[in-house]
Amino acid sequence: MSLAFEIHARDGRARTGSLRTTRGDIRTPAFMPVGTAATVKAMRPESVRETGADILLGNTYHLMLRPGAERVARLGGLHRFMNWHGPILTDSGGFQVMSLASLRKLTEEGVRFASHIDGSRHMLSPESSMEIQRLLGSDIVMAFDECPALPADRGRIAESMRLSMRWAQRSRDAFGDRPGHALFGIQQGGLEQDLRLESAEALRGIGFDGYAIGGLAVGEGQEAMFGVLDHAPDMLPDDRPRYLMGVGKPDDIVGAVQRGVDMFDCVLPSRSGRTGQAWTRRGPVNLRNARHRDDSRPLDADCTCPACRGYSRAYLHHVIRADEIIGSMLLTWHNLHYYQELMAGMRAAIATGTLPEFAAAFHAQRAEGDIEPITGDSA
Amino acid sequence: MSLAFEIHARDGRARTGSLRTTRGDIRTPAFMPVGTAATVKAMRPESVRETGADILLGNTYHLMLRPGAERVARLGGLHRFMNWHGPILTDSGGFQVMSLASLRKLTEEGVRFASHIDGSRHMLSPESSMEIQRLLGSDIVMAFDECPALPADRGRIAESMRLSMRWAQRSRDAFGDRPGHALFGIQQGGLEQDLRLESAEALRGIGFDGYAIGGLAVGEGQEAMFGVLDHAPDMLPDDRPRYLMGVGKPDDIVGAVQRGVDMFDCVLPSRSGRTGQAWTRRGPVNLRNARHRDDSRPLDADCTCPACRGYSRAYLHHVIRADEIIGSMLLTWHNLHYYQELMAGMRAAIATGTLPEFAAAFHAQRAEGDIEPITGDSA
Repeated sequence: MSLAFEIHARDGRARTGSLRTTRGDIRTPAFMPVGTAATVKAMRPESVRETGADILLGNTYHLMLRPGAERVARLGGLHRFMNWHGPILTDSGGFQVMSLASLRKLTEEGVRFASHIDGSRHMLSPESSMEIQRLLGSDIVMAFDECPALPADRGRIAESMRLSMRWAQRSRDAFGDRPGHALFGIQQGGLEQDLRLESAEALRGIGFDGYAIGGLAVGEGQEAMFGVLDHAPDMLPDDRPRYLMGVGKPDDIVGAVQRGVDMFDCVLPSRSGRTGQAWTRRGPVNLRNARHRDDSRPLDADCTCPACRGYSRAYLHHVIRADEIIGSMLLTWHNLHYYQELMAGMRAAIATGTLPEFAAAFHAQRAEGDIEPITGDSA
Repeated sequence: MSLAFEIHARDGRARTGSLRTTRGDIRTPAFMPVGTAATVKAMRPESVRETGADILLGNTYHLMLRPGAERVARLGGLHRFMNWHGPILTDSGGFQVMSLASLRKLTEEGVRFASHIDGSRHMLSPESSMEIQRLLGSDIVMAFDECPALPADRGRIAESMRLSMRWAQRSRDAFGDRPGHALFGIQQGGLEQDLRLESAEALRGIGFDGYAIGGLAVGEGQEAMFGVLDHAPDMLPDDRPRYLMGVGKPDDIVGAVQRGVDMFDCVLPSRSGRTGQAWTRRGPVNLRNARHRDDSRPLDADCTCPACRGYSRAYLHHVIRADEIIGSMLLTWHNLHYYQELMAGMRAAIATGTLPEFAAAFHAQRAEGDIEPITGDSA
């Protein structure tokens, strides 16, 4: 195995540990901010680091189209290009090609598609995805997979999962042996427990440095997702990191950590920051709402991020309403800070065997709601 | 006089000194970044300070409309609201109401207008402008003036200037005595030397803490502007700061400093940063241009700003083309850094009596052009 993964403590099914890369350790459970097009939107990489992030996610689909993987390689790789010198995980492009590209044609070989940017024609396959992720210089490479949107019938899900497992083997073969770089396989199977098990067994047979749980957070709802997570993580090797792709809201993440997941990524904290939504200990707060217009209090008096230390809710409301860039900058920072603080809290709780108490306090604080009742409508 | 102004050295007509405010000293010649709507766009105030700025400009017209001057006052004033604790100069609203508002009606009393944001009806007069700037908590308040667009006939310019001088007296009367706060008068008169002199004499008769040169940089061109500046600063009191409003490009500023101007403001470095234009020692560089696509060199190898220290031209090109917020953040920072470095260079040159050499080197370096010839078109 290319990257050492040490589990320091367990609490129920939850684990805390370190995934060691040549570019630094990743403390788990870990949240990975998404740097789609070689930037975590509205953040300088130094600021992303200040929030407590150990690792970023880059999107193969976006980067292969613009600026192009060969260009990034010529310019010294993605780390140097985007000035982030910690580890980077790249997705395989499989999910985004299905959600963003047009004129898609799926075959056993891979997916042909047209760029959503300029209509240019491209092909993604297990082999080309491995090559693109190698050119980008990714530390953790994801196997190329296909992910059907839910709901889908069982036949479609089984067929798709088996294709993804054949692609997983081809990804493994194409990846080869790259010391210091890891390859993760991705479990599929929708909400079907037997298909999830079949997928996990196929991946274990191939052998990966880590295992992702794919195909969730695509509209099935938290209850259905937790239903899968009640079993799926335990189907994967205990001694390797488990990564739940594209998840999620803070309460999704807490529930998934309790079920044995080690790694997460999601655009939610950055995307919602740009629209004026803050995530806090007391739940989501919509700063566009008129009730904040004259509120001299910080978003969260106990938060140490720059948005909460330097500004009132009234200011954040003003700059979000006025479409000022600093609104996106401050709220993205706050949200990423909150997410990282949540992960740090869970790591500490697992280490001291108090994760149930941590989770109970997390839910109780959210149930109290924001610091005053919402009296106006968001507009 | 409310604010002490000390001239430390002179070189020809140029001067370097300090304008002392209760919120810190302003080193002159000074460039004031523009924080229109309580933010220097795409910059955190800490970052603006890091570029070397001593003072910001706030726009009375924008702030009175959104979030409103009374609201800013209730929230503790503009400094606290926007988290900038150095001095702030506010314009009078006179220029922007004429360029942005609709349904304007100009009378002896003032200007009635409709907001460009929501069509709401408002009035600006010398008295209301003084009150709004007081509510904002401005350190340096500008007299309310009217500024005709050029070209305009001599009769219109004379009439407008005389109205502005009556308004200057009313501004002075309404401002009253506010220790720690300064009021600047604004010279008008277009390109007409005798009207400029008449205006200067009117302002000197009223008595202000500083004197602005208004009505320039409105389309007359650099030669015509320098023609006015060959005489206008000398019409104003030698022992008070002289502020050229809304100027300008780096070479405009160098020429104006050589002609005795102490203070400047302009949206150019921040606005052009958001569109991909960088200002450098070697002149303007358009980072949208395809020639930067594969260029691994920094924008300016000798610049110490974060954009030049951390990123290649290829990266800046990529994020500008992809409309990523970090493109605006990095290029605005670079441009403000370059402007402040230019001001610091002129202050040092004046102090050592070498401003002519400094200016000659400035022009020679720009004449060399960018680090390689432009081979593509901007697109």
